[in-house]
Amino acid sequence: MRVLGIDPGLRNLGWGVIDVMGSRLSHVANGVCRSSGGDLSERLLSLYLQLTEIFAAYEPQAAAVEQTFVNKDGASTLKLGQARGIALLVPAQHDLPVGEYAPNTVKKTVVGVGHANKDQVAHMVKVQLPGVDLAGPDAADALAIAICHAHHARSQTLVEVRA
Amino acid sequence: MRVLGIDPGLRNLGWGVIDVMGSRLSHVANGVCRSSGGDLSERLLSLYLQLTEIFAAYEPQAAAVEQTFVNKDGASTLKLGQARGIALLVPAQHDLPVGEYAPNTVKKTVVGVGHANKDQVAHMVKVQLPGVDLAGPDAADALAIAICHAHHARSQTLVEVRA
Repeated sequence: MRVLGIDPGLRNLGWGVIDVMGSRLSHVANGVCRSSGGDLSERLLSLYLQLTEIFAAYEPQAAAVEQTFVNKDGASTLKLGQARGIALLVPAQHDLPVGEYAPNTVKKTVVGVGHANKDQVAHMVKVQLPGVDLAGPDAADALAIAICHAHHARSQTLVEVRA
Repeated sequence: MRVLGIDPGLRNLGWGVIDVMGSRLSHVANGVCRSSGGDLSERLLSLYLQLTEIFAAYEPQAAAVEQTFVNKDGASTLKLGQARGIALLVPAQHDLPVGEYAPNTVKKTVVGVGHANKDQVAHMVKVQLPGVDLAGPDAADALAIAICHAHHARSQTLVEVRA
């Protein structure tokens, strides 16, 4: 199974693709979609086109997006929400259900603790995907989300097989 | 010029299309795109497909979206932001710049005061678009946004002609 993880953001939207074979994970690609300057609608279109290209290039079979941390800054939440709308739309257009994971769940799955920092996440992503060249912290987060989805999807399958 | 106004929302996304000839406005169509239940990504896809159909059916030449009121409820802001991302994406895909107007600007333009309630907005929309059959308050708001855009676009043109 090929999994795409997305760490949504308006300026920097991280993405990462991994292949999952049983308990073996391997890195396929990672990067950051950028949109800066210009009209908001044009920036959203740019993210949409970049994500659509990633789907065409890597043909993921599953997708997962980080659940957004809702903070007190309404303007930031709104911006993030708009980018997140695009991150959820594109997988749905490709008929993929989208897993959503809270940041703490992602960290707990990948690092072992829910309060890990960005460096720890990047380190554990490198350990689990040997040889990976990270495009930056947003791409590392996106790969962590994909790894988290792979673990949860496997546990669900195991439960179903045993049931 | 044909103008599409959009009042974004995840459950109910209001839309309204008007034709503008000089200072004359006429109603073309209005309605509400609905998405309820199911995965968030599927709901966003549903809104996307409905909006895309509206573009195909009415071929607007300009679009305007209400600026979102950012409140203290982060979860609501996030939901609205995601729907708003779709409302901004579809016009950009059709190469249309998107006007954004604060709710108070829309009310001031259409009703004359910035603190008008929904009934007053619906009433003035009916006065300015004789014979209109409103699909509901969200559709009335969307037509008000389209009317607001028509007024602002005309003022800009007048200024340019006089400059």
